Amino acid sequence: MAKFLLCDGKRVADIIIEESAFAGVKEIGKTVAEDICLVTDKTPRIVSSLVDTETEAVVLAATVGKSALLTELEGAGLVDLSQIAGKREVFMMKTLEYQRKSVLVIVGSDKRGTIYGMFHLSELCGVSPLVYFGDAYPEKKQAVEFEIKENDKGAFVSKEPSVYYRGFFINDEWPAFGNWAYEKFGGVNAKCYRKVFELLLRFKGNYMWPAMWNSNFSEDGPGIENARLADELGVIMGTSHHEPLFRAGNEWQQQYKEYGDDNSWSFLSNEKAITKFWENGVLRNKDFESVITIGMRGEADSKLLPEDATMKDNIEVVKKAILAQDKILKEHISADFKAVPRMLAIYKEVEDYYYGDETCEGLKDWAELEDAIFLLSDDNHGNLRNLPTEAERNHPGGYGMYYHFDYHGAPISYEWTNCNRLTKTWEQMTTAYEAGVTKMWIVNVGDLKEMEYPLSFFMELAYDYDTWGLNGLNKVKEFVYKWIDQQFGNRLSAEQKDDLFKVLEGYTRLNAMRTPETMNERIYHPVHLGEGERILAEARDILATANKLKEELSGETLLTYESIVYYAAAASLNLVIAWILTGMNHELARKGSLYANTYIDEIEKRVAEGKRLVDEFHHIADGKWNHCLSSAHTGFRSWDDREWSYPVVNKVAPLSVAKAMVSFRGQDRYHLGAYWQDMAPIVWEFYSDTKAKEALLDIDTRGEIGFDYKITLESDAVCCDKASGRVECESCRDTVNFSLDQSASEASEVKGRVDISFENGQKTYVDLLFKLGESRPYYCISAADFAENHKADGNGFETIDFLGREGSAVKVFPPMKSYEVEGTDSIPYVSYDISVDEASEYDIIFYLMTRNPSVKGGRMKFYASANDDKPQVVYSVSDHYYTEWQDAEWAQGVLTAGRQVSVSVNLKAGNNTIKVYAGDPGVIIEKLVIKRAGYELPTTYLGPIE
Amino acid sequence: MAKFLLCDGKRVADIIIEESAFAGVKEIGKTVAEDICLVTDKTPRIVSSLVDTETEAVVLAATVGKSALLTELEGAGLVDLSQIAGKREVFMMKTLEYQRKSVLVIVGSDKRGTIYGMFHLSELCGVSPLVYFGDAYPEKKQAVEFEIKENDKGAFVSKEPSVYYRGFFINDEWPAFGNWAYEKFGGVNAKCYRKVFELLLRFKGNYMWPAMWNSNFSEDGPGIENARLADELGVIMGTSHHEPLFRAGNEWQQQYKEYGDDNSWSFLSNEKAITKFWENGVLRNKDFESVITIGMRGEADSKLLPEDATMKDNIEVVKKAILAQDKILKEHISADFKAVPRMLAIYKEVEDYYYGDETCEGLKDWAELEDAIFLLSDDNHGNLRNLPTEAERNHPGGYGMYYHFDYHGAPISYEWTNCNRLTKTWEQMTTAYEAGVTKMWIVNVGDLKEMEYPLSFFMELAYDYDTWGLNGLNKVKEFVYKWIDQQFGNRLSAEQKDDLFKVLEGYTRLNAMRTPETMNERIYHPVHLGEGERILAEARDILATANKLKEELSGETLLTYESIVYYAAAASLNLVIAWILTGMNHELARKGSLYANTYIDEIEKRVAEGKRLVDEFHHIADGKWNHCLSSAHTGFRSWDDREWSYPVVNKVAPLSVAKAMVSFRGQDRYHLGAYWQDMAPIVWEFYSDTKAKEALLDIDTRGEIGFDYKITLESDAVCCDKASGRVECESCRDTVNFSLDQSASEASEVKGRVDISFENGQKTYVDLLFKLGESRPYYCISAADFAENHKADGNGFETIDFLGREGSAVKVFPPMKSYEVEGTDSIPYVSYDISVDEASEYDIIFYLMTRNPSVKGGRMKFYASANDDKPQVVYSVSDHYYTEWQDAEWAQGVLTAGRQVSVSVNLKAGNNTIKVYAGDPGVIIEKLVIKRAGYELPTTYLGPIE
Repeated sequence: MAKFLLCDGKRVADIIIEESAFAGVKEIGKTVAEDICLVTDKTPRIVSSLVDTETEAVVLAATVGKSALLTELEGAGLVDLSQIAGKREVFMMKTLEYQRKSVLVIVGSDKRGTIYGMFHLSELCGVSPLVYFGDAYPEKKQAVEFEIKENDKGAFVSKEPSVYYRGFFINDEWPAFGNWAYEKFGGVNAKCYRKVFELLLRFKGNYMWPAMWNSNFSEDGPGIENARLADELGVIMGTSHHEPLFRAGNEWQQQYKEYGDDNSWSFLSNEKAITKFWENGVLRNKDFESVITIGMRGEADSKLLPEDATMKDNIEVVKKAILAQDKILKEHISADFKAVPRMLAIYKEVEDYYYGDETCEGLKDWAELEDAIFLLSDDNHGNLRNLPTEAERNHPGGYGMYYHFDYHGAPISYEWTNCNRLTKTWEQMTTAYEAGVTKMWIVNVGDLKEMEYPLSFFMELAYDYDTWGLNGLNKVKEFVYKWIDQQFGNRLSAEQKDDLFKVLEGYTRLNAMRTPETMNERIYHPVHLGEGERILAEARDILATANKLKEELSGETLLTYESIVYYAAAASLNLVIAWILTGMNHELARKGSLYANTYIDEIEKRVAEGKRLVDEFHHIADGKWNHCLSSAHTGFRSWDDREWSYPVVNKVAPLSVAKAMVSFRGQDRYHLGAYWQDMAPIVWEFYSDTKAKEALLDIDTRGEIGFDYKITLESDAVCCDKASGRVECESCRDTVNFSLDQSASEASEVKGRVDISFENGQKTYVDLLFKLGESRPYYCISAADFAENHKADGNGFETIDFLGREGSAVKVFPPMKSYEVEGTDSIPYVSYDISVDEASEYDIIFYLMTRNPSVKGGRMKFYASANDDKPQVVYSVSDHYYTEWQDAEWAQGVLTAGRQVSVSVNLKAGNNTIKVYAGDPGVIIEKLVIKRAGYELPTTYLGPIE
Repeated sequence: MAKFLLCDGKRVADIIIEESAFAGVKEIGKTVAEDICLVTDKTPRIVSSLVDTETEAVVLAATVGKSALLTELEGAGLVDLSQIAGKREVFMMKTLEYQRKSVLVIVGSDKRGTIYGMFHLSELCGVSPLVYFGDAYPEKKQAVEFEIKENDKGAFVSKEPSVYYRGFFINDEWPAFGNWAYEKFGGVNAKCYRKVFELLLRFKGNYMWPAMWNSNFSEDGPGIENARLADELGVIMGTSHHEPLFRAGNEWQQQYKEYGDDNSWSFLSNEKAITKFWENGVLRNKDFESVITIGMRGEADSKLLPEDATMKDNIEVVKKAILAQDKILKEHISADFKAVPRMLAIYKEVEDYYYGDETCEGLKDWAELEDAIFLLSDDNHGNLRNLPTEAERNHPGGYGMYYHFDYHGAPISYEWTNCNRLTKTWEQMTTAYEAGVTKMWIVNVGDLKEMEYPLSFFMELAYDYDTWGLNGLNKVKEFVYKWIDQQFGNRLSAEQKDDLFKVLEGYTRLNAMRTPETMNERIYHPVHLGEGERILAEARDILATANKLKEELSGETLLTYESIVYYAAAASLNLVIAWILTGMNHELARKGSLYANTYIDEIEKRVAEGKRLVDEFHHIADGKWNHCLSSAHTGFRSWDDREWSYPVVNKVAPLSVAKAMVSFRGQDRYHLGAYWQDMAPIVWEFYSDTKAKEALLDIDTRGEIGFDYKITLESDAVCCDKASGRVECESCRDTVNFSLDQSASEASEVKGRVDISFENGQKTYVDLLFKLGESRPYYCISAADFAENHKADGNGFETIDFLGREGSAVKVFPPMKSYEVEGTDSIPYVSYDISVDEASEYDIIFYLMTRNPSVKGGRMKFYASANDDKPQVVYSVSDHYYTEWQDAEWAQGVLTAGRQVSVSVNLKAGNNTIKVYAGDPGVIIEKLVIKRAGYELPTTYLGPIE
């Protein structure tokens, strides 16, 4: 363990970057100097040779083959470059004494290696990759000394990155990123990209797709400046899946006149012009390090040929285009395609051409594409779909994954703030990696801002899969605490860190459970199983913690918190609260209860608060992030943002008559007072085995006439917290709490009665009936609460924390392994013990996370059995499931982040064992609800929780 | 024409009612004296003989056989009693000089004849039958002289009443009538019935069913006093359809203990007790003039036997009960059933027993019932159903009709105010009469108050069918003006009478179109065909007239107006307005327009106004009618009043963004500004042959950002009333009126554009497209606008004014005649000329009034043809139609007061003739809509109107 004193409190070490260094290294050198100044308030001098240094401690930033000083040090036996030479994007750090100087050598195996090493220096000083984008200002220090973890050769050598190309895609950049870039930089130009590239490099990424909704990367720099800067800084540029040969999506319609009169984007009718257009794109960008998108799609993410074209027609035209593209690339770049990184995106209809059909072989096995990267995609909502089969994994070009943290499209866009949970990203991207998708990871981050949190994790996972990949099972929480430390340094108390974790975990869980865009008053049930109240309480609790932190923090930590946590959380939670209250308001308005009106004030305040939060965020850091939360964000009525809306409040007018309304909280049924058509009591069932021994009785009014009520109970087995009360038009409601006194008697039923006396002399009453010790109609077991976890060859189910919509979930590892049920002991299973009151047929409902099959047409089967019965196959999705917007089943899964499937089993009275066996990849189980056949569960969003 | 000076300004004629007169005649004599005092401020003395008289002019009120003076006058040849002797309920009026007195002789053929004659005297003085119940105070007069229309024998002789038993049923008397009676009279007792009987007799009715929801007529008088009083006054009492042998519905459960321990109302298990119970009922009431309900039903209007009983079981038990009843009647009243008026109601399931089936002969032809009146019923909603066939009309007992102006039951009750139009009553009850239903007419008037208007007509029609029956075709308006004069005397101007007619016709039309109880925000379409706006304007106009009259009138006329017209009208119209506004509020809230919020104030004011109107009504005439409008009255969510509600208002929160919304008034489609997914213009079609040459363009905002808009039009064939404007968050909307300038050009299309510039600098636009001279997709013809009305043997279609939901309607007369199409000239038809632009298949949609077939299983067929095509049969209802709540088709018809059926025809371009031929009874056509096949009419409540 070597120490290096970068700053002794008086002077900060000079940095040597030689003339011969890469321009990008020089440029990043300045950034690192600024980083050090943020910490020390002293800017290191950057000099070009050791002789120019004035400090005793110096830093050398160099690249193998680009530094005379390095050669000198190697010659002196002070550095062993063989540890990194020939490696990809690797850096070595070593402290040494040379010419009476204490030298920290940062040497890269290549340009990016050096840059990563330099940013590593920043991090060692306490500077976060989010120093700009997250306003994560480092702690000030008088002196800076840090340790270099040395290997047995006395140096720190970084690993080669796990994923070859890794980066992000700024997408659908209006109104947020686009307006921001114009206001702050005058456009989506090189000034703007300078910040974006820096972020990518700090994350040790190397690849990106630029904004292209209304931006032309290679024209708007101004001119080629964006692309030139990327190349200088070592950022490998790509273009998105439907923009071949460096050409941004908009360029054709803007430039087609240079190539003729025909603006049609048809390779059939306009081949010559389009080919020339492509060729000019290559001539423009060929000198920059790039991955070149090939293939052809229609404009604006559409199909190329009309709907009635055959598979063969389509494949032919795509092949023709690719051959034309390859010809250009060979001519202008290299005849050796191993040296020309090409990428074909297997996205939407291109997937059909990739597989082909009986009439025509697909692109998959076309020799021309042998060296091309096949870029797969998730379903736009963070759920992987088709992955390479074992055989396909041999494809020499390798596979990539186009993943989404943000999407503008069906079933409903999510573009406002962060809806991504790290656990899902971990679970899905480890699956991709294990399926051989290691050549390219690119993630759509939409407008970028507020994606810092999941993007940090995505980039780290891509860079260091060894640590965070399969080995990282249930290490996400550890990552988050590290991330918190990275952003806030040592300025938070342990309790504040816990609070911050709670806020991050909480808001992302609620957003992942239901995005703000798809929230409306009909999501969490206002009545059934108290779901609305439960989520409301949870959202209020998380928001209170978020607000408490905002109160506690100040200065730079407050700003950091506001920039990357608070507003994302508060604005999201505020909407959850507003919509749940609106659901309650509408439900009670539908029932005519005046209590509906008591919600109006807060709903209206929440709407105003929502606007205020966005506006306030746009003003933090002197308006640095103006526009960044300006996307439409809730109450979407169509897939896009055109029809979004705030809650509509309902206001009930009191009837002019005496009208009480009595109901047990959590039940739809209400009683308006006994009369010939409805003499039946309202019923509450206390289950024999449940913890909940309380029932709330709401006594509402629908009318203007106030009333007194009196409760009578025929037995002391049930008691209530008040025996009488009064409800006025103004108070609207009184609530009585009934509880079970099990010591009192052995009664199986207790009758009660609410007598109501209205001010106008009218009287009515409602009979109550409490059923005691009833058999539960259903039981709920968390999937993680298994009695036995049977592994096979060490493989099997694992519990993943923070993955389920409301808690943990179980999944079989390794992720891509398939099992067929043969003998019950040869494959992994988990078993659950359940005791039921009655022997009967039961349905086991499996609450699954929304995932897609890893093969086309797959159904993500698994198996379940009760006691000694033969395991039954359970399919997670129907046999006509497909991951496109046209499939309501898929869309429903995406919107709700969960799905339910069930099997019927016979259980005996008393103890039973249910076993769940491994099957196909993609099955993630949150909970099991075991209900009596024929019993209908009350409709809810999340199902029962006990 | 003889004149009689009842009051010379100084003295009012004495009234002679001899000791020997009927007690009821004496009692009514006092009432008539009070009537005369109301006019003259002088109360006539009632004396028992001519010698006791002090005035020169005297009135003799006497009954044939009950007056010595009459015998004296007959002996003197001064009166010819043979003109009335032996007649039923007839009176004669004759002036004569006798013993130096000027005598007005009012002589009845029987007690009721005398009473009718006495009340006729009141009417001649200007006293309305509604003097008490309608607060119709007569005009004061100094002198009262009137003319007696003499026949050739020098006397006025009234006709025998047309319908033998005629009267009304106070039903479901809580909360309105019941609370009123308790507050004003201390109960539903003889003090109360004294007023009710008087009303019946003033109407020249003779029969009634007493309140029985929570009242026992023969026990609550107190004691037998109600029944005794009825008999004294000549009111023939019945009990309702399910209360045999004088026993009110509630009596059994209150009294069964006198007959044993078993409270079951089962003639199988408890025959002895029930028989004794009945017998005691007969012993109690046998001395009073009554029509005795026989048969047996379950309690509370339910079935007698369980659902699984066979037809034979049911018929057997009913027969057994009837035989037991008849035995009691024979024993205690008379063995001659001709002298014992018995009535069997053919209501609900009793109808099945009436017809019987293959397993068992029905009650219809059972000799035991030969002399019983068979009481038929409407469908509880004023629509007749089964009527006697020609053969059945020979039933010696005759037929009665139980008709409804008010009902507590499915599909939705109507019990608040008057929803009955006189034209419908006329149309339906003349049909009943023509079908031989002449023995008994009884109408359910619910709580009575506010039913004065239709009840006046019903009673007059029953009393004098000659004048108002078939001969009264289109004389309803004449009746109404007479009725207005009867209530208001000469105190209204001609204009005020016209206004009053407008209010009466208007509010009853809107209430009949949709009862207040069934009104909600989804009735009149807020958008399509401008329906909501149209009905709103109409309701506002009628209400304005009602309010104007209220302003203009004062004193007694104001009170009369308030009592029987104003509050019924204003409270109903106020609700129509509130609900239509709510529909618009909800529709615009659904669309996100802030303009939705502009409706909230008025909706809330209307709800308050509704409460205020009810309250105000309860305070007129010093609270005389307190409680009478207290029934639940709108927004019913179930068949009964338990779930009624006022409108729930929706409030939209403005979005924080710039968002305009542009739409043509009357169209669902709106445009939020052009963007890639929706570049299509919004389109307005000006039809070639329509009068409407205007289009309204609404420019709304959804967001907080105000904007300026500018209209451009590419041609002057369409112009607009303003070329630019501004919309703010506060104003929410601006409207541009476009009109067609046909002189300008021959353009077939005019393009336009709305350019929108938001305050925040954003811009958008909406393209407009006006299509000029488009072919209409549909044509609308009022059924009364026929080109030819072909009669057969003088019979055929007649136009009935004020019958259709929005105007007149046509119906074939005589009402019970059926036609089968044979040759097209042998049956009546009406023909319509229609010119269409395109030869095509068209659907003719017939808008029919809701009516029921006159025979079980009937389908109310008629025929239609286009040009020379063969007439097609059109069925008004499906082949599984039945008039019970279980049939959604029936229920829908009742709720909407209309139904549509259609046939397809081929029309040629240019002129076409459509013929509609007579078929079954019950077909009433309001309008024909002829639409191109495949064109879907916009959903509305009433269909197109042009």
